[in-house]
Amino acid sequence: MLVEDAAGFHAWFAERGAAHRYRIAPAPLHALDGWETEPGTGRIRHRSGRFFSIEGLRFQRPDPAVPAWTQPIIQQPETGILGVLVKRFGGVQHLLMQAKMEPGNINTLQLSPTVQATFSNYTRVHRGAAVRYVDHFLTPGAGDRVHYDALQSEQGSWFLGKRNRNIVVETTGDVPVHEDFCWVPRPVMAGLLRVDNLVNMDSRTVLAGLPDEPGAPERPAGRPLHDTAALLHWFTGAKVRHRPERRLVPLGEVGGWHRDEERGEIVHDAGRYFRIIGVDVEADSREVASWSQPMLAPVGRGVIAFVSKEIQGERHLLVQARAEAGTFDTVELGPTVQCNPGNLAEGAPRPPYLDAVLAAPPEQVLFDTIHSEEGGRFYHAENRYLVVDGTHIPLEVPEDYRWMTVRQLTRAGLVGNIVDVEARTLLACVRTLPGHGAGR
Amino acid sequence: MLVEDAAGFHAWFAERGAAHRYRIAPAPLHALDGWETEPGTGRIRHRSGRFFSIEGLRFQRPDPAVPAWTQPIIQQPETGILGVLVKRFGGVQHLLMQAKMEPGNINTLQLSPTVQATFSNYTRVHRGAAVRYVDHFLTPGAGDRVHYDALQSEQGSWFLGKRNRNIVVETTGDVPVHEDFCWVPRPVMAGLLRVDNLVNMDSRTVLAGLPDEPGAPERPAGRPLHDTAALLHWFTGAKVRHRPERRLVPLGEVGGWHRDEERGEIVHDAGRYFRIIGVDVEADSREVASWSQPMLAPVGRGVIAFVSKEIQGERHLLVQARAEAGTFDTVELGPTVQCNPGNLAEGAPRPPYLDAVLAAPPEQVLFDTIHSEEGGRFYHAENRYLVVDGTHIPLEVPEDYRWMTVRQLTRAGLVGNIVDVEARTLLACVRTLPGHGAGR
Repeated sequence: MLVEDAAGFHAWFAERGAAHRYRIAPAPLHALDGWETEPGTGRIRHRSGRFFSIEGLRFQRPDPAVPAWTQPIIQQPETGILGVLVKRFGGVQHLLMQAKMEPGNINTLQLSPTVQATFSNYTRVHRGAAVRYVDHFLTPGAGDRVHYDALQSEQGSWFLGKRNRNIVVETTGDVPVHEDFCWVPRPVMAGLLRVDNLVNMDSRTVLAGLPDEPGAPERPAGRPLHDTAALLHWFTGAKVRHRPERRLVPLGEVGGWHRDEERGEIVHDAGRYFRIIGVDVEADSREVASWSQPMLAPVGRGVIAFVSKEIQGERHLLVQARAEAGTFDTVELGPTVQCNPGNLAEGAPRPPYLDAVLAAPPEQVLFDTIHSEEGGRFYHAENRYLVVDGTHIPLEVPEDYRWMTVRQLTRAGLVGNIVDVEARTLLACVRTLPGHGAGR
Repeated sequence: MLVEDAAGFHAWFAERGAAHRYRIAPAPLHALDGWETEPGTGRIRHRSGRFFSIEGLRFQRPDPAVPAWTQPIIQQPETGILGVLVKRFGGVQHLLMQAKMEPGNINTLQLSPTVQATFSNYTRVHRGAAVRYVDHFLTPGAGDRVHYDALQSEQGSWFLGKRNRNIVVETTGDVPVHEDFCWVPRPVMAGLLRVDNLVNMDSRTVLAGLPDEPGAPERPAGRPLHDTAALLHWFTGAKVRHRPERRLVPLGEVGGWHRDEERGEIVHDAGRYFRIIGVDVEADSREVASWSQPMLAPVGRGVIAFVSKEIQGERHLLVQARAEAGTFDTVELGPTVQCNPGNLAEGAPRPPYLDAVLAAPPEQVLFDTIHSEEGGRFYHAENRYLVVDGTHIPLEVPEDYRWMTVRQLTRAGLVGNIVDVEARTLLACVRTLPGHGAGR
């Protein structure tokens, strides 16, 4: 399928939704087919030793005033592929997108990249069907041009050092289009990013690295508040300043959390943060028709926001150097605000800029859409993604924050493990805003 | 001291050598004051738990045809500072360099950066004197401008994920110069890089990140063989392809190595690679007047070389994506050749380009100097650093190799953990060659 506009897209997408049947049912962790709780450690793992496991982690900041904490965390050492195939039709870039079911998805079906495959998938540990289009990314041919290729982190609070290979390939070759796939014009994709719970995380992170269209309108001439050397100095300083100590601990001994044997879940003692639950899945459109797996189900909806401000004639974003429990290398660049207000402990300080973002009047809200995170590991994990004009926000910022231009952040994102996944989602959205980058 | 030319420098340096007395004597590992061999694991550690330790490592490539190996390795989780302070005198950049003794140094005294301090040093675990000039790097003042700041790896074959913070700060402030320090004009430093065993590793790695002088002669106009997207695609692919498995194992159980109890050393069964030895040190110019420590003493001299070739009107270097046992993140960009020919097992294949480099006729040898590695951990660790003109080397290269321009490699080196320490040493040298970069 090739669609010309949003209406055409939605018609196709609704038709795909009707074409498949899925059943996703909660199940207790102790009854998940193929999965076991390791005696002694309490670790939850697949009997084959593959896919992923749920471990315990202890995290301690160098600042002795901040108490250490322990938490469950997903360990998935494999590196999968998230690839978007691009092709020009009538001179316009189109992206080959996929209607894909994931068990944790709000609305079950969301829009995935051309390839969204774990290492187990594309090397066929599942013994499922071969992954479509993966050769364009694994072994690009003569008609394929790689625009972007980086190992990128995913949720640092929930994954221990996980990353996936993000790739964009533009092809001039013939591409047979399977019925679950659709060529979407790039300008139409920009609009779809404004629809709640439609474009999945795996798509958004790749879109963040899509290069500007040649001939896209130039950004207004301006100059960055900080040059590259100054930003790298600040980023390196943050890595040295945060340098947390972390180590795996037995999941059964993770303080502040317990296993509710009756419900078959792992929950926080005060009901905060997330639960580890199980699900049974039946599908007729996945590599394997039915399976069971543990999932991480967040408690409540998060707020993820960039404050944007015109400085010296150029749009800047207020980025934060964030150290999360599972961050691959100490800190990455995150959005201005990234938190779950409902999970703040009583009396805990409010994160900087949270209230400013939530209180922004409508005319200062440049972007406001709910997106959900990876439906293969996270169950109904919704975040409200915002971009807020920060004309009234002072230039002076706390130690862990810096103003960067959209172009600087986009370039930083071309190298892996520098820009976090939440910032990459917002970057994909920000770059479609007037005055924030090239048109898409 | 401020010197104007090489003669002035050598006079000052000889005078510093005469001003201090040092005694460095081999000592068995079991008799090192303050150090112990952990019962059970065989791990060698300081009784305080600080500084560094010698561990065992098991390393396995994903290619089942390549056998796994085990080896001793240095673990030093702390991040130190290597900083060079720059100041203009008469419009010319001068670097504040230090005559510093390290127990492993050939010639005892070598030329160090302004600051060369472990985290233990500059936080004064040694209870020694404060580290001079460190404030310019930890808390740059109004007169200080940071040109370069990155966490950079060190020898991946010998260190497990070690890195130091490399910083260049240019100051306009008054700087009192201690007698062991000297302002060296940047063009004079370029010449000193051609003197055997003089400019130490810590200096060379920082020099690699020194920005071009404003107004330096422009490189000839040309264009890179591969653009940035193509190089990042190749680099990411190498990370996924190599993805080694590695884990710490008890040092006492490292296969192929044994502890010679009589000599008090750890040695390879066939006498290859390196030995772990002990030394007793007495000095009158270090923070602490006498101490003992383990060191890694390589067997034989290594060959580290870039093949350089003019392509499309611009100088290119042939870089290699190298996965070493201790590499922080799978692979980094290394020189064309990096090996110790004397350590090649009998019948083992010769590394690509080694023989081409060794057989290059004199008129194709653009650079040829012996430098030694970190004298604080390595004992008499010499490498022959070469740059060889590769006019006759084909453009077509094996999978793990790519042609990059000097400018591309220099830019890649601004971000940490991309360019390895051997390539950074060569880069510092290469950038002083005619046609290879700005004059220094």
